[in-house]
Amino acid sequence: MEMNFSMLLLDEPTNVFAGTFTRNQFPGAPVYLCRDRLNNEKFQGILINNKIANVCIETGLDDSEQVLKVAAQQLGCDPSFLMASSTGVIGWRLPVEKMKEAVPELVKSTVNDSEKNAYKLSKHIMTTDSFPKLRSRTLPGGGRIVAVAKGAGMIEPNMATMLCFVMTDLAVSRETLRAMLPGIVSKTFNRISVDSDQSTSDMVIAASSALVPCDDTKLFENALFEVCSELASDIVRNGEGTSHVIKVKVSGAETEEQASSIGKALVNSPLVKTAIAGNDPNVGRFISSVGDYCGNAGIDIPVRKLELHLGGSLIFSEGAFRLTPQKEKELSEYLKNCSYPAEHKGWPVNDKTVDIEINLGIGESVSIITGSDLTHEYVSENADYRS
Amino acid sequence: MEMNFSMLLLDEPTNVFAGTFTRNQFPGAPVYLCRDRLNNEKFQGILINNKIANVCIETGLDDSEQVLKVAAQQLGCDPSFLMASSTGVIGWRLPVEKMKEAVPELVKSTVNDSEKNAYKLSKHIMTTDSFPKLRSRTLPGGGRIVAVAKGAGMIEPNMATMLCFVMTDLAVSRETLRAMLPGIVSKTFNRISVDSDQSTSDMVIAASSALVPCDDTKLFENALFEVCSELASDIVRNGEGTSHVIKVKVSGAETEEQASSIGKALVNSPLVKTAIAGNDPNVGRFISSVGDYCGNAGIDIPVRKLELHLGGSLIFSEGAFRLTPQKEKELSEYLKNCSYPAEHKGWPVNDKTVDIEINLGIGESVSIITGSDLTHEYVSENADYRS
Repeated sequence: MEMNFSMLLLDEPTNVFAGTFTRNQFPGAPVYLCRDRLNNEKFQGILINNKIANVCIETGLDDSEQVLKVAAQQLGCDPSFLMASSTGVIGWRLPVEKMKEAVPELVKSTVNDSEKNAYKLSKHIMTTDSFPKLRSRTLPGGGRIVAVAKGAGMIEPNMATMLCFVMTDLAVSRETLRAMLPGIVSKTFNRISVDSDQSTSDMVIAASSALVPCDDTKLFENALFEVCSELASDIVRNGEGTSHVIKVKVSGAETEEQASSIGKALVNSPLVKTAIAGNDPNVGRFISSVGDYCGNAGIDIPVRKLELHLGGSLIFSEGAFRLTPQKEKELSEYLKNCSYPAEHKGWPVNDKTVDIEINLGIGESVSIITGSDLTHEYVSENADYRS
Repeated sequence: MEMNFSMLLLDEPTNVFAGTFTRNQFPGAPVYLCRDRLNNEKFQGILINNKIANVCIETGLDDSEQVLKVAAQQLGCDPSFLMASSTGVIGWRLPVEKMKEAVPELVKSTVNDSEKNAYKLSKHIMTTDSFPKLRSRTLPGGGRIVAVAKGAGMIEPNMATMLCFVMTDLAVSRETLRAMLPGIVSKTFNRISVDSDQSTSDMVIAASSALVPCDDTKLFENALFEVCSELASDIVRNGEGTSHVIKVKVSGAETEEQASSIGKALVNSPLVKTAIAGNDPNVGRFISSVGDYCGNAGIDIPVRKLELHLGGSLIFSEGAFRLTPQKEKELSEYLKNCSYPAEHKGWPVNDKTVDIEINLGIGESVSIITGSDLTHEYVSENADYRS
């Protein structure tokens, strides 16, 4: 099988697990299956494959169930303890028989993996990713959170084609974890965008073995936020063909949601993305994209209140651009300095961001959106993805 | 001046004129100026420049007024009879003095142009356009509509960086023309998208010399619709780096607006656009983009009701993809056959469209959206636009 097939497995079943999923109206069979199994008492593991996403296939749900059944038999657990996660081409059927044949070996190697190697998992779930995504935190009083993610394209608001699996030994309650996860996802994974496409397969699954007492839920929440936030940044930096990571801070908005929407309108504008790719500080396009979104959404921003900075440099205030040829030259240098080669195949050479700050001047809310530029490499990867 | 500077001029001032403008929240000074002058009794002409869009410049409105004043003096008309239209870089100031110097020659050559050459105008207003856009209709009972347009990038819903000037001699009333134009624009120019960006400068201005009696307003409206519809198609086919024109017909929607929004979500998805650019019938992305939009917009489409065709071939029905390797091969051939070289510098070699049909199965409304693919040439043009 050319497919990567991996497994996350807890030593024992747990009742502390949670999940959030894509809002795509036509999600894959694994999303239906996982959503359903959130109602169960117990969770022990998840089988993950790439290559084929198992979306809108007549036999899709049964295909996933069949594969899980073989794994459950091998493990001696109830099939309902296992979940499935698939990414890849939408519209093709899983090679069910081949996957069933491969399951015993996969289960054996997972059970026998004495190192419980999350790094291995982070490498196995990669698709067009160029580096594995693994982040962790150890709490001062003991206990850890380890999380892996994959994702490089079809990345937008609601977790696009990204998967994230969070493991912890900290004994938060099932209810606490479930109350916490959506809020953290909305402030991390839902604030990134590589190509504005939210996929049919996105999910974040979190589970705890509950072996280490957790005295301070707030500390736990903070650590979980940090881990997810770092993984979200990793995903953008590894976006298909990305050569600049763009960080837009929108402040002075009426609501956080409004700030997020305006930030996304800016980072998703093909004209903004291509200008940045070319190290061209064409800041007129920044203002135009904000005006485009606000005009259509009926958000009235008095142009005199709007303020825009790029790389700390004032670009727009009191209704007018504040540009000089010298400033434009410096901004071009700034953009060059924030770039890295789009064709990199390992860790990018820097972790710089193109910092755009917009103050709308109509409220108190703030949101930070992270996105990527649009390069030739993005077009190449996505025009030839299946060939 | 490297700038193209052109003029549309009627022999006599008219009171039959109308305009529709961008919904961008931060429009250019010419948009403010034209909107204001729609309140005037008379209109005689419009000065058009490319290169610099005159948006959010402290002296912007005065700059445009000054240039118009020189033209009015030369013509011996009131400056309020003239409008201005600018496209180009957002954030830079117009070279006012140089434009004022150039006005007399421009007015002279326009007045002396015995051919009243609309073709010349259509060529002069081009920016990154690779061919001029000129369409006309002659009504059976006499009288004509001639319209020119420019636009190749920053093209989305609400007339993006596109300009269109419609001239007619048919004596419709001022009120009739003004009642008609917005509806026609919403069904033509507002249903195209090259890169989802609505600019700060878009406008459609229509004016009539009212020299030829118009007996049948319905016939006039129909001819005006056809002219605008053809120009809208021309703009997409000339989209920056376009190698496929994509035509999405969304039917079975609850409202026309819903159908339009879903069609736009599909043609604006970078993953759909790149797949088509690569002649890859990755139809999973089509379904995903529709599901992405509907999921976020809270539109509930029962997946079993959805039906999708590509090039007349059934792709999706009753909740599942209907693909075979043979069908995928044929669809790839179909896409290849619809393509033309993105780097063409004249009329494209064909007028084919990639036809996508989606039936949502939840209502009776229909909309057709026309968009373009996303190629290397688009990235090149837009990453290097100002250099």
